[in-house]
Amino acid sequence: MNILVTNDDGITSPGLLALAQAMRTLGEIKILAPDHNWSGSGHVKTLDRPLRVKETYLEDGSLAYASDGAPSDCVALAILGFFDEKFDLVVSGINPMPNLGHDVTYSGTVTAAMEAVISGIPGIAVSLGSVENNLAVDDYQPASRLAAEIVTELIQHKLASGILLNVNIPLLPEDQIKGFRITRQGLRVYRNRLDRRLDPRGKPYYWIGGDVPTGIPEDGTDIGALADGYVSITPLQLDLTDYPAIQAFAGWSLQLNQNDNKSLTKP
Amino acid sequence: MNILVTNDDGITSPGLLALAQAMRTLGEIKILAPDHNWSGSGHVKTLDRPLRVKETYLEDGSLAYASDGAPSDCVALAILGFFDEKFDLVVSGINPMPNLGHDVTYSGTVTAAMEAVISGIPGIAVSLGSVENNLAVDDYQPASRLAAEIVTELIQHKLASGILLNVNIPLLPEDQIKGFRITRQGLRVYRNRLDRRLDPRGKPYYWIGGDVPTGIPEDGTDIGALADGYVSITPLQLDLTDYPAIQAFAGWSLQLNQNDNKSLTKP
Repeated sequence: MNILVTNDDGITSPGLLALAQAMRTLGEIKILAPDHNWSGSGHVKTLDRPLRVKETYLEDGSLAYASDGAPSDCVALAILGFFDEKFDLVVSGINPMPNLGHDVTYSGTVTAAMEAVISGIPGIAVSLGSVENNLAVDDYQPASRLAAEIVTELIQHKLASGILLNVNIPLLPEDQIKGFRITRQGLRVYRNRLDRRLDPRGKPYYWIGGDVPTGIPEDGTDIGALADGYVSITPLQLDLTDYPAIQAFAGWSLQLNQNDNKSLTKP
Repeated sequence: MNILVTNDDGITSPGLLALAQAMRTLGEIKILAPDHNWSGSGHVKTLDRPLRVKETYLEDGSLAYASDGAPSDCVALAILGFFDEKFDLVVSGINPMPNLGHDVTYSGTVTAAMEAVISGIPGIAVSLGSVENNLAVDDYQPASRLAAEIVTELIQHKLASGILLNVNIPLLPEDQIKGFRITRQGLRVYRNRLDRRLDPRGKPYYWIGGDVPTGIPEDGTDIGALADGYVSITPLQLDLTDYPAIQAFAGWSLQLNQNDNKSLTKP
């Protein structure tokens, strides 16, 4: 069992250390993560510049590699041959703050797992339900143990190809976590506001500011499960087609049937 | 009708100019686009640095704004109040190369439209089926006219909230384009390879190289429609939950029912 461990907070993050230690109990691990924080970076494929990779060590002395690419680039590097190993699993995290609802397309943690799945390897993204980033390695202990439990089940039962797991774990002592819930993606409520400021030379610059997102804690969703004190496990896939919406085009005057030749010359 | 025009190739791209000219025939437009190329950038939300916006002009003299943020940041800036206007529609493109299959989560063109939809505004991403980037403004003329036709229908018929359109247009003279197809997302086949090189000082660096992606041109898909000479219109949505997969967890020994308290203390 070869496991790639990565994250989006960067190689020095205590969440990566905790996750690496937990994954080491399950198989051979390699660690390749960004050399700086890529939170909110999205699903990147860096093609316009080369990537560097530096050998380094985690706080516990584990050999690790830091790249100047995004989390998804780290996964691509690892899978495309930076390591000799073929990987059986990519695990990304542990992110201190949760990745819920629409966060999944922004999140470096989740998009690293997407990159794995696109390459045919199961991917798991693990995030914690903290309201702030500044956690110590011990804060990740319950979550890393639970992540190992989920990975153990994943190894045993497997998932169909193309599925990644988005796992969010409450920031609670283990005996206060109520259980696991298989969930769907809920509705995130973003509360960004534009914060216009003037620099010392009187020129404007703009922060995307505002309050941290909330969400609708509906039953059955990732947001609801986490709010209720459960570990949320959401199976995600990457076909974004809105199948019901395909019917909605019936009334459009663009001619759409198969024999529709030269429809574009009509008004 | 207030339309925001943006792209991922940057403010100087001829595809943006062609799209802006076509959209101006349909309503009031504002142009806010990145100051450099963000292809493959993913769905970015820049929170760790402020964004700058510079006033500039397109080649035809249109007033436009260039930001140092990603395409999705440009949309966020515009919607959150950089402009006084409230936007009715965000149109992104025209990208010279197609955005098909799994490209949608990487693509700056598509993620700009995602950002619109998350903010409650319809979004359309428009790409051309070129095999190379280096096109002139005239190459975008058929596509920009067809994009205007699609937007006209969209205005008239509307779409349910949360849906964006991913439009891919063959790079053909207009009389050789066969019609429009409403499609689903197809299967992209990536052919990346890692290209390890040594710099002049003997240190390695890594290009994500290889060949341009192909895809499975199945009937009913974006890839199939474009290959057959049709305009592909794919309705996308942002709930990535794999609903059928939720059943796949039945055999997992993580206890999952609602009354499952303290399941985590079990082996």
